[in-house]
Amino acid sequence: MGKFHDLIPEEGGWKTLRRENLYDGPHIQVEAIVRQTPSRPEGVPWTVIHRRAACVIAPLTAEGGLILIRQERVPVCRELWEFPAGQVDRWDGPDTLRETALRELTEETGYRLAEGGELRAMGHFFPSSGVMDECSFLFLASPVVPAPHGATPEESEAITACRTFTPAQLRTMIAEGEIVDANTLAAYARLAALGWLPPPGENS
Amino acid sequence: MGKFHDLIPEEGGWKTLRRENLYDGPHIQVEAIVRQTPSRPEGVPWTVIHRRAACVIAPLTAEGGLILIRQERVPVCRELWEFPAGQVDRWDGPDTLRETALRELTEETGYRLAEGGELRAMGHFFPSSGVMDECSFLFLASPVVPAPHGATPEESEAITACRTFTPAQLRTMIAEGEIVDANTLAAYARLAALGWLPPPGENS
Repeated sequence: MGKFHDLIPEEGGWKTLRRENLYDGPHIQVEAIVRQTPSRPEGVPWTVIHRRAACVIAPLTAEGGLILIRQERVPVCRELWEFPAGQVDRWDGPDTLRETALRELTEETGYRLAEGGELRAMGHFFPSSGVMDECSFLFLASPVVPAPHGATPEESEAITACRTFTPAQLRTMIAEGEIVDANTLAAYARLAALGWLPPPGENS
Repeated sequence: MGKFHDLIPEEGGWKTLRRENLYDGPHIQVEAIVRQTPSRPEGVPWTVIHRRAACVIAPLTAEGGLILIRQERVPVCRELWEFPAGQVDRWDGPDTLRETALRELTEETGYRLAEGGELRAMGHFFPSSGVMDECSFLFLASPVVPAPHGATPEESEAITACRTFTPAQLRTMIAEGEIVDANTLAAYARLAALGWLPPPGENS
């Protein structure tokens, strides 16, 4: 589909009829396309941004704490509390997503999945489906334990803190609008809907 | 900040030192910037996509149903169930967000806020803060009632269905990965954290 991955198959009435490159860079590509849709077989013109897929990890400790990082996000001029996440560098088959999730967990938080722990898939979501084909895959890693060598963030990242929150604390941060990161909100929605969060305490 | 809005002030150690246009279109602009951050006063190079802000509305009926639309999303080749949402066309002061939310609610669903109903703000979120400055504002509209003239979607949109779901049905669709739209997941996370959803029934 784009230059990065082919995770979104064109099937069931979807087909790209024409495409023209508008900008092609290392992180994103922008194209003007005409795409056939199920209800519009003649095709509709659209500007589409291609971006690599990503993995988002909700790390849960044996004590029921959720680990978040605080990261400077350059495009929005803010430092945000977030679940760790990272892009899929190269698609190497069906294990790629789990490998990316486990790598980003340790790189960004300094924690790893415990022996006998489980990485549970929670589906995917589209961060900005009106303009971008980015697709983010959600995981719950449980339980996690400190990794021997700690965190090893990439050079372009600025992670300024890493902390464990109780589910009640995370819930309050979401209710009060302190969590504004789509990855973290989407993961929380899935965790809440699946009933995978410990029940709120009396202070939540 | 970009060509669209200035909703994200550069303050507290954030400052754009250089900017170069890479692509400039009607829907997005792409720039190569060097931006000072609190932890990196020398500035970091980044590719930033500018896009208009948006409003997302969770419409709740007097009977406790949540209204979603089904929309063809061209960039991801999928038809998605979503809360209604739309972009802020032009910033006309502090009422702009509420006006946009009420307009999109009716345009996309054919419902409007009831007389004496309330449009409650649920903060904002950043759909893809690693690469884009898009900011989406979340609202709960309660209760909503059918509008006299029904829905009037924009020509570029393809809304193929509009339906009312119980909170338990929505929860199941999120748990099972049928809801993959960031706006809807973020709104659900806020609704759940705020305790603004009716408690789940025995089937949920």
